[in-house]
Amino acid sequence: MPSALILIADGTEEMEFTITYDTLVRAGVTCQSAFVHDDEFVSPVAAKGSRGIRIIPDVYFEPNVSGPDKFDVLVIPGGAKGAETISKNPAVQALIREYLSKEKLVGMICAGSIAALTAGLPKQALTSHPSVKAQLESDFIYSEVPVVVSDNLITSRGPGTAFPFALKLVELLCGVEKRQEVHGPMVFPPGTPW
Amino acid sequence: MPSALILIADGTEEMEFTITYDTLVRAGVTCQSAFVHDDEFVSPVAAKGSRGIRIIPDVYFEPNVSGPDKFDVLVIPGGAKGAETISKNPAVQALIREYLSKEKLVGMICAGSIAALTAGLPKQALTSHPSVKAQLESDFIYSEVPVVVSDNLITSRGPGTAFPFALKLVELLCGVEKRQEVHGPMVFPPGTPW
Repeated sequence: MPSALILIADGTEEMEFTITYDTLVRAGVTCQSAFVHDDEFVSPVAAKGSRGIRIIPDVYFEPNVSGPDKFDVLVIPGGAKGAETISKNPAVQALIREYLSKEKLVGMICAGSIAALTAGLPKQALTSHPSVKAQLESDFIYSEVPVVVSDNLITSRGPGTAFPFALKLVELLCGVEKRQEVHGPMVFPPGTPW
Repeated sequence: MPSALILIADGTEEMEFTITYDTLVRAGVTCQSAFVHDDEFVSPVAAKGSRGIRIIPDVYFEPNVSGPDKFDVLVIPGGAKGAETISKNPAVQALIREYLSKEKLVGMICAGSIAALTAGLPKQALTSHPSVKAQLESDFIYSEVPVVVSDNLITSRGPGTAFPFALKLVELLCGVEKRQEVHGPMVFPPGTPW
């Protein structure tokens, strides 16, 4: 059974976090959320999302049990403040490089894509929320498609692309059939382009 | 500024809850989540969603401060177990009737639409998750469109229709311009039918 580590922080975009976590669980992926915070002496009960929803993480982020030997995908959601905390964390940056070097997946959505920059990833195709495009376009091959797959780096744009982002992760982790199996009961409106 | 009361319980579908709450906050709607539980002596810290995400409610549900004099819309999310707890609660059923009689909005999505039945609402147009259609189709004019507006009762189908559901609530509470203002930064993929 594939497994996912999904990071969360104060200011994480709660829809991007929830849609990814929930959709992966529907596909049978074992999900663990890990709370990243910028003050190592604070252990709050919950992460307060970008719009005020308080989510209790499964664990606090511990780099030494967060590696690609434990999980098949590392996910970094957006939300400006949350993405800043996560992308500035040197242990997260090191993990991103380690996941990719071990050919495990890394997913980034919205402002979460800033972590591609802070982790020092090589120039490649990538997308993000339009609000952080200017920070990324000189170091990457910037795209505006909803979900960009660049080898094992999967990036996406915002809450509105969170479903296709999550479903792409399902497809890569569990196959096209599982993606279709999960898609049906969600009851997307006719004509939805994913 | 419009205000929304969004119910939550153990087993609530966390995407439907989060997408509605977050989208309404983006539109400037003051949101309060209220934890409904079936044992009045239990006060858990968080509601555990249908896929395991733990969300701390803003308050515990108290019928006497949840009325249409306090909020402009009452929202009932889905998730089979959560919707069952909420829809079986007699105080919730009374509130649904009171909101509608005072011409305030009531939103129900997914299995949350079962509350239309338990509250004894008159026969009218309605939709729900396909899994509970059989329970509703003889008492209502069952529709399969993504969002059904029947006077002040707004119903929808599942996580896949949660964005158009939430945006319809924004439109009704705040107007079409606010809906458009909120829609843009979410970065829906081109061709998204809402």
